[in-house]
Amino acid sequence: MNIIGIDTSSAVATVALMNESKLIAEYTLNHKKSHSTNLMPMLDEMLKACEMKTSDIDLIAVCNGPGSFTGIRIGVATAKALSHVLNVPIVAVNSLEVLAFNSVSSYSYVMPMMDAQRGQVYSALYRCDGQVVELEGMGVKTIEEVLSQIEGLGERVMVLGEASELYRDELSKLSNAVIPPRSQRMARASSVCELAAKKYSCGEISNGFELRPVYIRKSQAEVQYEEKMKKALGNE
Amino acid sequence: MNIIGIDTSSAVATVALMNESKLIAEYTLNHKKSHSTNLMPMLDEMLKACEMKTSDIDLIAVCNGPGSFTGIRIGVATAKALSHVLNVPIVAVNSLEVLAFNSVSSYSYVMPMMDAQRGQVYSALYRCDGQVVELEGMGVKTIEEVLSQIEGLGERVMVLGEASELYRDELSKLSNAVIPPRSQRMARASSVCELAAKKYSCGEISNGFELRPVYIRKSQAEVQYEEKMKKALGNE
Repeated sequence: MNIIGIDTSSAVATVALMNESKLIAEYTLNHKKSHSTNLMPMLDEMLKACEMKTSDIDLIAVCNGPGSFTGIRIGVATAKALSHVLNVPIVAVNSLEVLAFNSVSSYSYVMPMMDAQRGQVYSALYRCDGQVVELEGMGVKTIEEVLSQIEGLGERVMVLGEASELYRDELSKLSNAVIPPRSQRMARASSVCELAAKKYSCGEISNGFELRPVYIRKSQAEVQYEEKMKKALGNE
Repeated sequence: MNIIGIDTSSAVATVALMNESKLIAEYTLNHKKSHSTNLMPMLDEMLKACEMKTSDIDLIAVCNGPGSFTGIRIGVATAKALSHVLNVPIVAVNSLEVLAFNSVSSYSYVMPMMDAQRGQVYSALYRCDGQVVELEGMGVKTIEEVLSQIEGLGERVMVLGEASELYRDELSKLSNAVIPPRSQRMARASSVCELAAKKYSCGEISNGFELRPVYIRKSQAEVQYEEKMKKALGNE
């Protein structure tokens, strides 16, 4: 079974190709957020290098958020289109779990965090011991809440994701927060494949009509629109 | 400082581009051992995708073995040529340390192993705690010696590299040997960059004239030639 993994939910665009026995290819770009321009050429380049055709793909694995609203839409829309055209199933995985998978062999707490802007982060808490075990589901928190949560955990917490770089100074003041090296802080599409393979074997499969992005909170445009409508109705 | 990382010492061809603050790109192919055909196009593709020219490269990081003799030569020869043409320094890193870097945050023993054929492996022993600390330098061992060494260590040992897949059945019988998921078993050029950046800051820099491959043992052709010569001399 050939699985294509896609993640464009952060500043990173990453694609991978994996089968039962090995990771066949992985291509990751962390240069400008031009995901809509880069994603299909990256997939095309990778498949060609592996002498594969799109008809060799058996499963599409995609990261459906949380993260950048536009980024998520690019990945999910591409995955849906591929699934529809190739008539193969999709498995959606969570971007925070994808990040946590980098530290799957850390035998410690792992807290991935992505920038939710306005001093907030999307975060979740996992315990990794060869598997990624969710202890606390994803949510939006202030950075102060996150710092206090890490401190409260007492033992070593691997902290990763783009927000861990944004709040690096604050995190480095905590004695138990560990930020991994550059190469292990960002999402890898191979992790999308790994997590999707597990979900697939448990029957957690979607199709292009059901799959929805996970934004967690409303976009700034929606919030402003609702406020405007509320005011307008109040003035009637 | 822009570092280009290259590793073709195993069945995997991997290139990366990293600067002080982030991993900019990484491209890994684990499909057929056509490194001589793939390596330069992979570098070219990656640089173009990052809107970079070869003149933007400040340092070449290359894996100089141990591993596949032909593979090492392809990587090292390419690195030497680039260093010479671009007039930038080279830093060479060890392929076993590159593999160990995958488990840098495992807080455990890490034993990378590469197939040395004839029932032997190239292996080394590290302790990883956010850094890769060498406990036993690289050497050639039989798989029986390696299994007994892992068992003797008592606590958890992360085992990775292509030989860990070759001897998966034997390793899985040991209660303390842990084989990481597919995506974390193979070399990543980002690790070549990370290790090279550290060596560079310590002044461990080469140039294209000094740098030599690390084969550890003689090639089968050399062994046979020497035996033949010995016989011929004995017959004189």
